[in-house]
Amino acid sequence: MGSPEDEAYRLLQEYSNGFMVSQVLFAACELGVFDLLAEAPGPLGSAAVAARLGISCRGTEQLLDACVALRLLRVQVRTGEAVYANTELASAYLARASPTCQQHMLLYMARTTYLCWAHLAEAVRDGENQYLKAFGVSSKELFTAVYRSEAERLQFMRALGDVWSVEGRSVLAAFDLSPFPLVCDLGGCSGALAKECASLYTGCHVTVFDIPDVVQAAKRHFSFPEDGRISFSEGGFRRVVRVPGGLGGAAFMDNSNDVA
Amino acid sequence: MGSPEDEAYRLLQEYSNGFMVSQVLFAACELGVFDLLAEAPGPLGSAAVAARLGISCRGTEQLLDACVALRLLRVQVRTGEAVYANTELASAYLARASPTCQQHMLLYMARTTYLCWAHLAEAVRDGENQYLKAFGVSSKELFTAVYRSEAERLQFMRALGDVWSVEGRSVLAAFDLSPFPLVCDLGGCSGALAKECASLYTGCHVTVFDIPDVVQAAKRHFSFPEDGRISFSEGGFRRVVRVPGGLGGAAFMDNSNDVA
Repeated sequence: MGSPEDEAYRLLQEYSNGFMVSQVLFAACELGVFDLLAEAPGPLGSAAVAARLGISCRGTEQLLDACVALRLLRVQVRTGEAVYANTELASAYLARASPTCQQHMLLYMARTTYLCWAHLAEAVRDGENQYLKAFGVSSKELFTAVYRSEAERLQFMRALGDVWSVEGRSVLAAFDLSPFPLVCDLGGCSGALAKECASLYTGCHVTVFDIPDVVQAAKRHFSFPEDGRISFSEGGFRRVVRVPGGLGGAAFMDNSNDVA
Repeated sequence: MGSPEDEAYRLLQEYSNGFMVSQVLFAACELGVFDLLAEAPGPLGSAAVAARLGISCRGTEQLLDACVALRLLRVQVRTGEAVYANTELASAYLARASPTCQQHMLLYMARTTYLCWAHLAEAVRDGENQYLKAFGVSSKELFTAVYRSEAERLQFMRALGDVWSVEGRSVLAAFDLSPFPLVCDLGGCSGALAKECASLYTGCHVTVFDIPDVVQAAKRHFSFPEDGRISFSEGGFRRVVRVPGGLGGAAFMDNSNDVA
């Protein structure tokens, strides 16, 4: 107890510095570091990265070295200069060209979640979310704040798509859904999970159910297979609704109507 | 690659959620959870914690369970109720009564550092600190922002004291300073390291050198051994100064004069 070598003290420091680790990751995404290195023909020095991204040399060097420590980048010395390249982790999850890129989710966390969590103590005290303090948006319902502008709605929709690109298949395979000709994704957002579903279960049709604003944005900004196996249905969870196309006329209680 | 079981994906999630871990720790400190449990005669249920701290029941239950997951609290079931107590980590580093308590540093990080790091991408872009965006304090010098009010100065001074309470001794023992009858701590702040020094090297006198505001605050808010082995000297690093009492009249270049 009470020494820098103490395992408990080391753990405490890891916890208290956790936000810095998050921000190194978020900042490198935001500034385009991983995309630049993915597109470059070979490893780049920090001065070249700074010049191409139009950002400060000193800041870039420190950021790149922090990314190396986190195993997001690897560094080697070529003709006396340190040059950086993406690790496999960055190639798979942080470069925009990868089908499993998580950038939208990370930028959503950086721009929304991180700022809300600055008020965690007040949230626990009040028992309420802190969107009013964080964004000036009064909200009893989470999604009123998450969807506070068209840009924010789109950011969140793309962020969910990132998650499903990695986790969708294992969620959908947890139970065998192949006997069902029609699957309805309630609150299906951009249709990302629906696409995974239609891909995994080649015989089914998927209906994405969500509020009108989200359905319109999904149709406008996302693409879907042309075989017509994914369709959309607009509604709100607070009303009793009937899902078009059946499910035996199943009725669902809607609990997020004030979003619409 | 591209599956939830992938080690790289798991690491990425740990990084992106790091700020949540920090905030759970910060919030539990801020709300007084560890102090309450340290002073209670035995483990407490979440309803009792919520009632005594005057905070929400649901938020408290979730916060306590998050602290259990982080090994900051331990939980057991007594007569059908989950009751919580501090772990050794919390007793040593998070309860105010412990001589190695780190609460001031953690609250400084929660209230200042976390908010600055929200702007890391801009800081790397500009190559400058972001105190203006975070706190409306224009600053070319770190300490103008850190010391932006009397309360903030005191918070920071106490935070440094927390660090030295654990790390001071090993820093001071890294080299044998026992041959030196006079040690001068330049930028010695609250005198926390000076006290560790006087305690480790029982024959030496320690002079704490810092800007006048800090020296005055140190004398006003912190206590020192009565044997007179710790004294203060006011100055600024940008001027060439002579340390009173000697060091052979050693001169030091001051680089933080605009703080004073």
